[in-house]
Amino acid sequence: MGEDYKEVLCKMNKVDPWSVSEVKDYGKLLEEFGMSSIEEYKKRFDSFHYIRRGIIFGHRDLGKIVKALDGKKPFAMMTGLMPSGRFHLGHKMVADEIIWFQSLGAETFICAADVESYLMRDISFENARETALEEYLANYIALGLSEKKLHFWFQSDYINPYYRLRDMCSKRVTFNELKAIYGELTPGKITSALTQAADILHPQLDVFGGPKPTVVPVGADQDPHIRLTRDIASRLSADRAGCRDFDCIPPSATYHKFMSGLTGGKMSSSDPKSYIALREDPASASKKVLSAKTGGRETFEEQKKKGGQPESCSVYELYLYHLVKDDLELSKIYHECGGGEIMCGECKKRCAKMMSDLLSEHQRKIPSALKRAQKLIGKT
Amino acid sequence: MGEDYKEVLCKMNKVDPWSVSEVKDYGKLLEEFGMSSIEEYKKRFDSFHYIRRGIIFGHRDLGKIVKALDGKKPFAMMTGLMPSGRFHLGHKMVADEIIWFQSLGAETFICAADVESYLMRDISFENARETALEEYLANYIALGLSEKKLHFWFQSDYINPYYRLRDMCSKRVTFNELKAIYGELTPGKITSALTQAADILHPQLDVFGGPKPTVVPVGADQDPHIRLTRDIASRLSADRAGCRDFDCIPPSATYHKFMSGLTGGKMSSSDPKSYIALREDPASASKKVLSAKTGGRETFEEQKKKGGQPESCSVYELYLYHLVKDDLELSKIYHECGGGEIMCGECKKRCAKMMSDLLSEHQRKIPSALKRAQKLIGKT
Repeated sequence: MGEDYKEVLCKMNKVDPWSVSEVKDYGKLLEEFGMSSIEEYKKRFDSFHYIRRGIIFGHRDLGKIVKALDGKKPFAMMTGLMPSGRFHLGHKMVADEIIWFQSLGAETFICAADVESYLMRDISFENARETALEEYLANYIALGLSEKKLHFWFQSDYINPYYRLRDMCSKRVTFNELKAIYGELTPGKITSALTQAADILHPQLDVFGGPKPTVVPVGADQDPHIRLTRDIASRLSADRAGCRDFDCIPPSATYHKFMSGLTGGKMSSSDPKSYIALREDPASASKKVLSAKTGGRETFEEQKKKGGQPESCSVYELYLYHLVKDDLELSKIYHECGGGEIMCGECKKRCAKMMSDLLSEHQRKIPSALKRAQKLIGKT
Repeated sequence: MGEDYKEVLCKMNKVDPWSVSEVKDYGKLLEEFGMSSIEEYKKRFDSFHYIRRGIIFGHRDLGKIVKALDGKKPFAMMTGLMPSGRFHLGHKMVADEIIWFQSLGAETFICAADVESYLMRDISFENARETALEEYLANYIALGLSEKKLHFWFQSDYINPYYRLRDMCSKRVTFNELKAIYGELTPGKITSALTQAADILHPQLDVFGGPKPTVVPVGADQDPHIRLTRDIASRLSADRAGCRDFDCIPPSATYHKFMSGLTGGKMSSSDPKSYIALREDPASASKKVLSAKTGGRETFEEQKKKGGQPESCSVYELYLYHLVKDDLELSKIYHECGGGEIMCGECKKRCAKMMSDLLSEHQRKIPSALKRAQKLIGKT
């Protein structure tokens, strides 16, 4: 926590005899950090000795709770416990407060922070569960906690194996590794990156049959994610004192090149002229092909003489990637162009026709494909 | 991603006519970043034109997949899609690869990254779902994706409201805010902090009845977490163009002082002499009280004359916090000590007896409390 805060807390670690001196000892917290003094509620809650004696010395927004009490409206009490070590008199203070708020009518939420104890203190989920039960919950109940209106949960109860995996990934990567890949970090970016690593590794969860080779086919620009996930996988499955976080095989990958955009630069979703969408009107797609950037020469004469340059032609790329499956046919196109036998206008017309046919044929399949897709999503 | 990588990718954005020049164009990726060339697998997979033509030019660990194929062992193919924009020819490349790996027998995992599109591109979960269905999944299926051995999921499918809340929190806090509270950050610390914020706010989820005042009783050292969570709550429930991320009330809090340890310093789980555990042997607890640090004077005579100092006595603190509920009785102890009427030895014996009684009485309740605790955990 902030240094200022720490300093104040160090000075605070004194006892006052009763409830008189807290204004002096705890004054800085009240003044500088905007807490409110408990003073105004002492009378109302004088049956609770923690308040009466100023052991609870400050609050924020307790008025909202008082208002809910007065209006007989619902309100909640939330607290958490770190399932490590033994439950001692210091912990009893929180327990007494929980039980007091519960007695006032609070819907009571108690969180066993086993994800935190795993991440921050290397405590296994199993040990955390035992400590939470034997030390914390049993003592709470013996002290008077009622099961009525009580929600007691482990953070990991809310985690299916997928989320537990995401949390495990967060423990096996450094801040600087993420920064090298993702640049300036935000908590949102970090969440996003960890989710992606968990996505890639989760086919190897027990529910999906356990460790297995997994290939991730990606564009070459995605390699940094792949390398990161491979590193995380190695660390997760490394043997640590006879046990592994998660037994998995670092994912394999294949890398493809990029398609150029029809306008010459990148093919990018943010520039509709650069791409042809698969559900785009075939006529619109034809038009884009006809005005695409080609590898043609400056003049008709030059092209006749030197030939075109299929290696820097977005139209040739359409043949290469998507339109011509047969290598001989593709080779013919390549050499016709390079040999100056065919000019760009004619070539683009042929390409536009093939593209239009591809889209029409594809779009014919869309209605039934969409039904199947809806069914698929409905069932997941 | 890293600057070096970006530079290489910029230079790479050229087309080669066939599959010959990729070694030149993509060589740096292969050499400097440790990718392997696809060359060795071209023959084996020459029926797939992306490999035959070197459009897929590199890989990592593809040998593992080949080995699984040869041994007729299970293997998986995993990919993700960002549900934004239109599905175009560039995306079709990935789809073709998915379908090809599926045809080889891969168990196929496709992730619709709607948590990512929410965090990084402000796309609502609803819009993401529609785009994933209409643009991506429908096109995949029309291109030949089979539902057999297919797992298609939204990242948010794995999120119950609790986890969606955690992800929302990650979007509403800055890196520097976390750093001010938690010091040097690690991805694990960030995960932990965000989980705690979600823990505090989740009693206000719809499943628990929606927004309501919530009080969090804590020690004064926990205030930075509370302030952070209050800030996040305000931002989550702020109106943005007519909608809120999550309608909630910033949590209220009460703050208590710390108990001193019996040895004089902090009461700390890591120092068993400093605390008394509630399930500790009463005899052991008595012993700790008898050797506790008191507010006694240097000599018997001095204490007779000046009186003890209950305000800096860990034994007096035990009365104040836990052992004496009646204020008059506590006042009597305070003045007996301060007036030099009772010496530390006698006082500690009385305290040890009371502490031992408290623990015995408490521990009598533990067996049935433990049963109730087990039942409670079983049902959650």
